[in-house]
Amino acid sequence: MKFKLLILLLFLGWGVRAQNYSADSLRIKGFFDMALTEGMAYSWLDDLSNKIGGRLSGSPEAAMAVEWARQVMDSLGLDSVWLQPVMVPHWVRGSEEKAAMISDATFGREEVNVCALGGSVPTAPGGLRAPVVELRSFDELEQLGESGIRGKIVFFNTPMDAKKISTFHAYGSCVGYRVNGASKAIEYGALAVIVRSMTLKIDDDPHTGVMHYSDPTKKIPAAAISTRDAERMSRALKHDPNLEFYLKMDCHELPEVRSFNVIGEIRGAEFPDEIIAVGGHLDSWDLGDGAHDDGAGCVQSMEVLRLFRKSNYHPKRTIRAVLFMNEENGLRGGIKYAEEAKRLGEKHIAALESDAGGFSPRGFSINDSSYVVRYFQNYRPLFLPYGVYMINAGYGGADISRLKAGGTTLIGLLPDPQRYFDYHHSREDTFDKVNPRELHLGAASMASLVYLISEHGIPKKMDKN
Amino acid sequence: MKFKLLILLLFLGWGVRAQNYSADSLRIKGFFDMALTEGMAYSWLDDLSNKIGGRLSGSPEAAMAVEWARQVMDSLGLDSVWLQPVMVPHWVRGSEEKAAMISDATFGREEVNVCALGGSVPTAPGGLRAPVVELRSFDELEQLGESGIRGKIVFFNTPMDAKKISTFHAYGSCVGYRVNGASKAIEYGALAVIVRSMTLKIDDDPHTGVMHYSDPTKKIPAAAISTRDAERMSRALKHDPNLEFYLKMDCHELPEVRSFNVIGEIRGAEFPDEIIAVGGHLDSWDLGDGAHDDGAGCVQSMEVLRLFRKSNYHPKRTIRAVLFMNEENGLRGGIKYAEEAKRLGEKHIAALESDAGGFSPRGFSINDSSYVVRYFQNYRPLFLPYGVYMINAGYGGADISRLKAGGTTLIGLLPDPQRYFDYHHSREDTFDKVNPRELHLGAASMASLVYLISEHGIPKKMDKN
Repeated sequence: MKFKLLILLLFLGWGVRAQNYSADSLRIKGFFDMALTEGMAYSWLDDLSNKIGGRLSGSPEAAMAVEWARQVMDSLGLDSVWLQPVMVPHWVRGSEEKAAMISDATFGREEVNVCALGGSVPTAPGGLRAPVVELRSFDELEQLGESGIRGKIVFFNTPMDAKKISTFHAYGSCVGYRVNGASKAIEYGALAVIVRSMTLKIDDDPHTGVMHYSDPTKKIPAAAISTRDAERMSRALKHDPNLEFYLKMDCHELPEVRSFNVIGEIRGAEFPDEIIAVGGHLDSWDLGDGAHDDGAGCVQSMEVLRLFRKSNYHPKRTIRAVLFMNEENGLRGGIKYAEEAKRLGEKHIAALESDAGGFSPRGFSINDSSYVVRYFQNYRPLFLPYGVYMINAGYGGADISRLKAGGTTLIGLLPDPQRYFDYHHSREDTFDKVNPRELHLGAASMASLVYLISEHGIPKKMDKN
Repeated sequence: MKFKLLILLLFLGWGVRAQNYSADSLRIKGFFDMALTEGMAYSWLDDLSNKIGGRLSGSPEAAMAVEWARQVMDSLGLDSVWLQPVMVPHWVRGSEEKAAMISDATFGREEVNVCALGGSVPTAPGGLRAPVVELRSFDELEQLGESGIRGKIVFFNTPMDAKKISTFHAYGSCVGYRVNGASKAIEYGALAVIVRSMTLKIDDDPHTGVMHYSDPTKKIPAAAISTRDAERMSRALKHDPNLEFYLKMDCHELPEVRSFNVIGEIRGAEFPDEIIAVGGHLDSWDLGDGAHDDGAGCVQSMEVLRLFRKSNYHPKRTIRAVLFMNEENGLRGGIKYAEEAKRLGEKHIAALESDAGGFSPRGFSINDSSYVVRYFQNYRPLFLPYGVYMINAGYGGADISRLKAGGTTLIGLLPDPQRYFDYHHSREDTFDKVNPRELHLGAASMASLVYLISEHGIPKKMDKN
């Protein structure tokens, strides 16, 4: 009798699971169908990219983007939409960026394509002219020492590694030169740093990005040079080691500005206190229109809420779309959001970030214990029909990173990474580089994962790391 | 003792397999590293696309492409390179393609974007003007019958299904209107057919492609209309069912031309009589430069041979890159190649085709028994690190299809399918739409699979289908 009961219970259990699976599968198909046939993310992105454009923190465009996003969220019939104030830096590129290499021995003077790195101080008004020393690593900097560096412009010419299948790994190995190059070089008396643009493409577009002074009393100008000009200068230096570089920039820091994270919420029907955040960052660099970085993540996150509303899905848990301000040069929005969550005692069970471009989704990376990663891997069959095949342990995202301390499972959307750095932080990051189907497949993937977490929660975490 | 021997043999067997796996894995990494750091496919494609351009069968550009491909193959140090003669059709678009919709009741006359379908007869020199009947299916054609169709232009306005994750499935459900629409409509007395372009994008570019007259004595002009104009005309017809369409085209068929498949071969060291063919088609439509369709497949196939030579891999079996002529409007090259293989008693154990665009590779589809499919699925772990996750039963490719009768395992490369039909057969299929890393990842995937087949063969095929 007991045995029969056990069998019966097992069958019932199996039945419930199979029913779940089938219901989940149908829901997910519904999200994909809707996103692909009447998705709004692409048309929103058109507005954000082409009507507002680049929106660096503190800029009038960033303020416009906040208001625009609030209005879009307001149109979705959510339970609440609000702005979360946050003070952000206001760095501006200024009106002039000029650079040239000068070789009295060979070609005379040739203009090169550069742009100031975000946060850089300007040169003196008349510009700066000095000999160049080309380096491949911080080790070489140390080896050369002050005698080799003082009075020179340091040129970090380290290409990204094309052999890495994920371009993000290649970026990760090089971005330190951009972020910390100036602060390291000034220790040896460098006058400025020029950093090879973080892209695998050889072209004329310099790629900006944040840089950081570790000692606020020691600042030298920092610029990115296009990959083609980096290779040109490297060749020129072999012919003429006395080659000089001329750099003129009038970028500068203005007083901090009050800005906002834009937040929209659907309140959970069963567990309203368990929050699932889905987001991207609303600010972008100023050179392009920030369509891939990270307009895509913003419109996808809003699309998640729209898909839920439109398909009459009432989530068990509270779902928030969070458009973070100031990811690029300060992370102030992400920090503020986590601080407020802590202050209010909010429980974020998961946060999903899309900040790797609006390309075909290929997976999710999960920042949590291996137990939780394996739990999510059970969902793989639900995603495979949509080409989403990777569910791995990995990075969540910058904006959501500060929620980690509160025990939140952090998740990053992994789109196809091949094209991202062709555009990233350059004037090439524009709306025309986005394919609507790829963008909408990403949004539907995000909606599907948020749905699954909302329905089934995340199990107690073992082997917490 | 016997038992111990068995255990020993098992361990030895396991050891050999593990060694194989490790050797294969290293080889494959070598192909990917080489393709990503010094791949030639992209620069070859630049030449083919930008120096030669669109190369419809029989055109001077197609002849140039043959000579160009022969020269590239000659430069690779192969064991042999040859041209395989084949007679091909020579259809030309002519100098004029004009169309307009005319509504005396409402807007007067508006130009629309059309292009002749490949193989279409021209209109009369003065053009053709007639009322339009819009249909969604061949069923509707039958229902309307001769009384509804005679003397009219049939407008097949069936959009591709955006819900299909593979755009190729969506294409497959619609392409019949393009291929057979004219022959079906003429049976009911239609004067011409206008077919909605086969793309999910709403834009102004008409997409051509082959059409076919089932009865050579019954021919009416056939054109593609851009998706935006298809939707415009559909709306206009609702306001004015008497709307007329004006169409003028002077496309026509010229005498057949002698052309060539271009073939390069590395002779197998152990089993030279077992041939593995890898190919794409050298001809393209005339509107764009045929970069994705199928310049990509051609340069990837040549890159397979280059990677083998460059990495000093001496294949056990004979490897052929075959650039087929006339896939688009006749398949003469594919037919000829299979005929010659049969005539010469050649044994093709496998043929791999790349004809779905030069996008990020995501898998392979195998046209063979489920036993063989499962055999190939064992290779999945070797491909997963490169984002190639699908090994499914499915279609091989048009050019290689005629080898099927000889028992050849047919294999198709499956790139990411989202963007392909944005460009396919239109003026938008140009080199700038190709990303070098995506193209080279595809080439390395092909090289890896060809390598595995060359090393390990394909096991005896059970449950042959």
